[in-house]
Amino acid sequence: MAKSKTVTAALLIIGNEILSGRTKDANLPFIAEGLGGMGIRLSEVRVVPDVADEIIAAVNLLREKYDYLFTTGGIGPTHDDITAECVARAFDRKLIQNAEARSRLEERWAEAGIEMNEARLRMANTPEGAKLIDNPVSVAPGFQVENVFVMAGVPKIMQAMFGSLRERLVGGAPLLSRSVVCNLPEGRLASGLGALQAQYPNVDIGSYPSYAQSGFRVAVVLRHTDSDVLDAVAGDVLTLIGDLGGEAETQSV
Amino acid sequence: MAKSKTVTAALLIIGNEILSGRTKDANLPFIAEGLGGMGIRLSEVRVVPDVADEIIAAVNLLREKYDYLFTTGGIGPTHDDITAECVARAFDRKLIQNAEARSRLEERWAEAGIEMNEARLRMANTPEGAKLIDNPVSVAPGFQVENVFVMAGVPKIMQAMFGSLRERLVGGAPLLSRSVVCNLPEGRLASGLGALQAQYPNVDIGSYPSYAQSGFRVAVVLRHTDSDVLDAVAGDVLTLIGDLGGEAETQSV
Repeated sequence: MAKSKTVTAALLIIGNEILSGRTKDANLPFIAEGLGGMGIRLSEVRVVPDVADEIIAAVNLLREKYDYLFTTGGIGPTHDDITAECVARAFDRKLIQNAEARSRLEERWAEAGIEMNEARLRMANTPEGAKLIDNPVSVAPGFQVENVFVMAGVPKIMQAMFGSLRERLVGGAPLLSRSVVCNLPEGRLASGLGALQAQYPNVDIGSYPSYAQSGFRVAVVLRHTDSDVLDAVAGDVLTLIGDLGGEAETQSV
Repeated sequence: MAKSKTVTAALLIIGNEILSGRTKDANLPFIAEGLGGMGIRLSEVRVVPDVADEIIAAVNLLREKYDYLFTTGGIGPTHDDITAECVARAFDRKLIQNAEARSRLEERWAEAGIEMNEARLRMANTPEGAKLIDNPVSVAPGFQVENVFVMAGVPKIMQAMFGSLRERLVGGAPLLSRSVVCNLPEGRLASGLGALQAQYPNVDIGSYPSYAQSGFRVAVVLRHTDSDVLDAVAGDVLTLIGDLGGEAETQSV
């Protein structure tokens, strides 16, 4: 794959609750797989606390370094929800009350008999010029500023928001994969796998040991944009395993 | 808590398989909670691919910025396991074959009838002057260089390694917590919680909405080093919820 066709993204997970271990992040694998399917490679993830300077610095670094930046967390109504103001500061834009966001929230509140208050109105704040990201679960929208997509942290809401972004994202060639799982230890495979990696420098060859109920397993995962290339390398991996006396099966990743 | 007594740490998760979404990281919450119990605050997490320049840059930045840096992943025998050489380069130290690590591995291999080979011997490589981290699961050790602790990515092995580090880590006052879970929406709590945060600027007050089987819930999580302070703030939160007509219970976090 030509370097120029690799489209990259970073994910910035915002929230003390992830760093304390209280909340287990479930958004990383969902976003990774969703982007992968669009030909966008998740290339870095950072988790930062609810501290403005840390958020702003990470937003500015990651939006420069990668084609897209996605953030999760910190867009609710409480005092610890500071993502919108941090993204505004990162872009040196004013934080404004977004008329469309306010209108959507007011409609929802009227329907549900929820009182409007100052805290709830914070959820209508976006950087000036932001484009909203629909929230079909609980209305309060996310937003996009240039290549930065700001989403909720609650997985159900994040997933709904992410689902609406497909048409705004332009990916490269999707990265395809093959997984060969075998019963040989990594130490026996390593030399042969290293030689295959040298032979196919553009194929991402990973080796992942795990403990399954049936015993120790190694998954050899191959990634490339060309299905024929993957088939060839997978064939070589199967031959390698067979030559070493191992048993293998090819799995979908 | 005096600022000078806050002991901080970062976690660097190394591996393409996390960024592809194939492997769901389970080490972050384990390490976060383990450190928290020792009075060490996990303050940042990064996930980077198996790319030397990215690993080296992250190691050098994070070991400078925080009191401790923990890494997971990339210390096996295969070509994609490059953590040891990257940490050596980050510290500008030679990568050597560690005699004690080799001796442990040879003993294990002899017992188990495993052949020694070049790839397996890579697991004995450490930066010069590194201190080993025991691996009671599969022998191949992790290692420590100054304030950087290099551990395996497989959770079972990482947990065993982490368990042996307690005596090498010096924490500050442990961060204690209280959790008050209630049936009010965040938008009703927000104003009162913001006022409490202003009243107790040194208490970390977080508000976390979730969908439970029983319906929508908000957990208000309080963190501080002083149990009496936490009891006082938790009392104020309970009063706030009661005044707003909600029901609450205090939970262990």
